[in-house]
Amino acid sequence: MAEPFSFTLKQTSGMARRGEITTPHGAISTPAFMPVGTAATVKGLHPEAVAGTGAQILLGNTYHLMLRPGAERIAALGGLHKFMNWPGPILTDSGGFQVMSLATLRKLTEQGVTFRSHIDGTKYELTPERSIEIQALLGTDITMQLDECLRLPASREEIERAMRLSLRWAERSKRAFEGHARDGFGLFGIVQGGDDIPLRLKSAQGLTEIGFHGYAVGGLAVGEPQEVMLKVVEETTPALPADRPRYLMGVGTPHDILEAVARGIDMFDCVMPTRNGRHGMAFTRFGQINLSNARHADDPRPLDADSQHPAARTYSRAYLHHLTKAGEMLGQVLLSTINIAYYQALMAGMRAAIEQDRFEDFRVATIEGWAAGDIPALS
Amino acid sequence: MAEPFSFTLKQTSGMARRGEITTPHGAISTPAFMPVGTAATVKGLHPEAVAGTGAQILLGNTYHLMLRPGAERIAALGGLHKFMNWPGPILTDSGGFQVMSLATLRKLTEQGVTFRSHIDGTKYELTPERSIEIQALLGTDITMQLDECLRLPASREEIERAMRLSLRWAERSKRAFEGHARDGFGLFGIVQGGDDIPLRLKSAQGLTEIGFHGYAVGGLAVGEPQEVMLKVVEETTPALPADRPRYLMGVGTPHDILEAVARGIDMFDCVMPTRNGRHGMAFTRFGQINLSNARHADDPRPLDADSQHPAARTYSRAYLHHLTKAGEMLGQVLLSTINIAYYQALMAGMRAAIEQDRFEDFRVATIEGWAAGDIPALS
Repeated sequence: MAEPFSFTLKQTSGMARRGEITTPHGAISTPAFMPVGTAATVKGLHPEAVAGTGAQILLGNTYHLMLRPGAERIAALGGLHKFMNWPGPILTDSGGFQVMSLATLRKLTEQGVTFRSHIDGTKYELTPERSIEIQALLGTDITMQLDECLRLPASREEIERAMRLSLRWAERSKRAFEGHARDGFGLFGIVQGGDDIPLRLKSAQGLTEIGFHGYAVGGLAVGEPQEVMLKVVEETTPALPADRPRYLMGVGTPHDILEAVARGIDMFDCVMPTRNGRHGMAFTRFGQINLSNARHADDPRPLDADSQHPAARTYSRAYLHHLTKAGEMLGQVLLSTINIAYYQALMAGMRAAIEQDRFEDFRVATIEGWAAGDIPALS
Repeated sequence: MAEPFSFTLKQTSGMARRGEITTPHGAISTPAFMPVGTAATVKGLHPEAVAGTGAQILLGNTYHLMLRPGAERIAALGGLHKFMNWPGPILTDSGGFQVMSLATLRKLTEQGVTFRSHIDGTKYELTPERSIEIQALLGTDITMQLDECLRLPASREEIERAMRLSLRWAERSKRAFEGHARDGFGLFGIVQGGDDIPLRLKSAQGLTEIGFHGYAVGGLAVGEPQEVMLKVVEETTPALPADRPRYLMGVGTPHDILEAVARGIDMFDCVMPTRNGRHGMAFTRFGQINLSNARHADDPRPLDADSQHPAARTYSRAYLHHLTKAGEMLGQVLLSTINIAYYQALMAGMRAAIEQDRFEDFRVATIEGWAAGDIPALS
């Protein structure tokens, strides 16, 4: 093992934090964005292309991988890093969120959750212990505890029940993680409690007492207004240990991420850059650009001549428009790459701004850039 | 312009020929295989990745490009090379074959063919002159004449009628090509005549009298038995000028190509390596391998540890199997790349064998390799 898991908080600017995570597979500069490699692949991209965007860590989905190709199979093949040819750090989720959103015939008990695969109907059981075991089989650098992901809206009683169950599962997760002798790897607990701040604080306190290498804020980015999400983040981060990384799960748009960093979050993951890219949407410093729009059909200019990524500088809008309209795979590949690269450039910009203690200036200027909109169409 | 079109026959081994084509966008060592970039993209692959397989020239489809995004649009954007970011040579077909296989409401006259787009029903006319004009707008290095691609089976009278029409169109194509002042670029005539050898010879003679930079054998690879195709090739190539390149259109499997080179063909194109790759089939020196087969699910070995292409050496069969079963885009990208790279390695092997005048040994050894089959599954 190269280096054990650690987190160093290097600098702050307001609530925004500049940090460094080390893992057995390498270091991660925070604030960090993790592209999503659902089924052991960031859709359509060579691992080298993902690294070429500046990404330092990927997220893998335990639910997808346990169903296909199976955790024991990946372990026998040398683990997830080797399987997918990604030598850098990997964080895996616990599987809980996707069990609730994709699987059928779910049944939740104190013990865990049983469900049937959305692929072939096979029956599975996922418990806190099994989730940890799967993530150990995958060889992931950062393991997430299993939690209950409630569907909102829900009553306060229901939110509290799920939060307390998640806390008990957090404790079982920690014991299981220690049982797998994963010394040097990271285990994160997940704060739940819906939009109820007192419940969120109880959850944060309970997790801190158990003790984790990092803390995630879960149960957000599920359709609530942005101000609700940011309010929960803002009230929760001060209740988390300053010397541990904080991860806002499943978030979000560039603006969501910018505002969450401003409230003390260090890590993010989201399918948006890849999923939207596959549907012809580009994320840029001019805001989102819909390449399927006819105004791009004759435009020889690249998406962003000043981008640090060659794909955003090289291919014309006309070509990206053509590929999008023709449903060509290369359009999906290029826009996924360009979008992840934009997210990474945004994170790099935030990191530099925090280092110079001018994060608020950066935040305002970035939002102004988006608000100014795309460069004018050629006349 | 870098260099004008030329062909140098450097060496022969039996009927097999080792040559060099120069074009305004670079040189091509023959025998050569051209990956198909239908809609201004080799499906899913960055141009750099295509070049990385060893490919020196791409084929573009006039029918697809005239419909979407349109030849005048590509010309206004600087031509096809710039549009798709491929700096090397490009050959385009005339559009005739795909009008017959894809378009609706076709009507053929002496003048040309009218049809409706399979995309949106728009009505188009394609004449020999318009086909040349479109290819000039695209800026292609090697232009193909418009010919009539007959559906087989057909009567001898019908085959002869189509062959003679194609000859008249060849003459009009040459005049049109000269009218576009495409000095330094290449124009190829197309031998037709079905499986009727005397008609093929008449077609070859007629085209030679008109005079082209190269000669294609068309109307094959449309479902006829391999021995019929090879018989036509074998009888036709001696009737073509030795100092001009010969192109067998739309062919084929590695075995088809090997046998056609043995009969004096210099250039090939086929969608097989990319299309089959998108469906989980790999071309290797062990023959074709179906990655969706369950026997690969736990196999940590690469497709071919001795391949010159990193993708064939790096990713495990288990991973390629997983990507194929999961319908992941990266599986399509990797197998398309691996397959084109195998085709290119086969061409490079043939070129080296001709240079050493041991083509027949190479042919036999290559076929033995395919016949021996895939490496045994792990027990």
